[in-house]
Amino acid sequence: MSDFIEAGVAERPSIVGIERLLARNLTWHRSDVTAAERAAQLGQRPVTIWFTGLSGAGKSTLAFGLDRGLHELGVACFVLDGDNVRHGLNRDLGFGAEARKENIRRIAEVARLFNDAGLVVVTAFISPYRADRRLARQTIGADRFVEAWLSADVHACEQRDPKGLYRKAREGTLPDFTGISAPYEAPEDPELVLDTGILGVDECLARLVADVAARVRRG
Amino acid sequence: MSDFIEAGVAERPSIVGIERLLARNLTWHRSDVTAAERAAQLGQRPVTIWFTGLSGAGKSTLAFGLDRGLHELGVACFVLDGDNVRHGLNRDLGFGAEARKENIRRIAEVARLFNDAGLVVVTAFISPYRADRRLARQTIGADRFVEAWLSADVHACEQRDPKGLYRKAREGTLPDFTGISAPYEAPEDPELVLDTGILGVDECLARLVADVAARVRRG
Repeated sequence: MSDFIEAGVAERPSIVGIERLLARNLTWHRSDVTAAERAAQLGQRPVTIWFTGLSGAGKSTLAFGLDRGLHELGVACFVLDGDNVRHGLNRDLGFGAEARKENIRRIAEVARLFNDAGLVVVTAFISPYRADRRLARQTIGADRFVEAWLSADVHACEQRDPKGLYRKAREGTLPDFTGISAPYEAPEDPELVLDTGILGVDECLARLVADVAARVRRG
Repeated sequence: MSDFIEAGVAERPSIVGIERLLARNLTWHRSDVTAAERAAQLGQRPVTIWFTGLSGAGKSTLAFGLDRGLHELGVACFVLDGDNVRHGLNRDLGFGAEARKENIRRIAEVARLFNDAGLVVVTAFISPYRADRRLARQTIGADRFVEAWLSADVHACEQRDPKGLYRKAREGTLPDFTGISAPYEAPEDPELVLDTGILGVDECLARLVADVAARVRRG
């Protein structure tokens, strides 16, 4: 029983109404809700699925597909991607090495907060440097961090080039472009690998949803 | 029915098992989970309770008490405070005017992400400047932002001085201290006001939990 309620009641406070809760003569003690209590309330084990891979490897597509699949299974989940982070929290950052490092640092800190709150997080950022991903793993916690490498190679990604970015990078109008004019350091021991240069979206999503649903339920 | 599943099934996908879901021959369409869907899944209206007030006015105590009270009522909630933000996401920031502005900007962006994910947020930061709180309101959305002024005055807070900070500020060893050597701009039209210089913790929490529970349920 929570020590939030000092009156000697046996039932869980959450099953009584707010009026009854407040009508009692209570003394409120500081008793922070733990990460374990939040996870138990949501009925899930919070993990961060950290996608990494080249531009065009399918990070956003698979992140939002995975999010939809988990949502339909009743999992409380959230995607952090360029649209909601680069245009918001990290709008002050550029794309040089230092800015990329700070970009990943902040995303990892936010993912940690979301996991502490009990939610499953999916991140969709190139995150090209091993050292940055290692820091993300430390920040979020090795027991929660699931590095998922979308391993389509630069040729496959450049052939697709859905946003025309590789063309601009080859023309030299887009500097510091990962895979062309900036390095991508492949994961050495990722929890998941999907060769999105070969596998189709449906196949990748079926594997991802099954894998992550098992992780979220475990424990 | 969600357009996630193309096969003509009438039941909600969430009530079928993962194996059955995956066994079907599905085509996955990108269909981002909306903020409304996330809120509906959690059965609550996400709001941000933005505490503002002097050091010692009771922000952290009431934030964690409110969090505990809402948790016991089944609300999925999370506190952003100095401990989990200043030591993590914002560890690179100091306490000058520009750093305080950036501190509040990032907290507002994170609160917005949490609200988008469906969670109720409680923030516990002095947030002394009107312009910064106005920006937070814009970022989070006026329909979600609940400015809660803990209005204990500097004399009441200095008498308590639970961390000995006012003494240090008077001695001059703690620069830019709100209420002593840096300004506090009181809210002009806050959604909630609690004079924590007069009201006890139990009374404040009873009022807060009742007020916020009604906001979270409304709509």
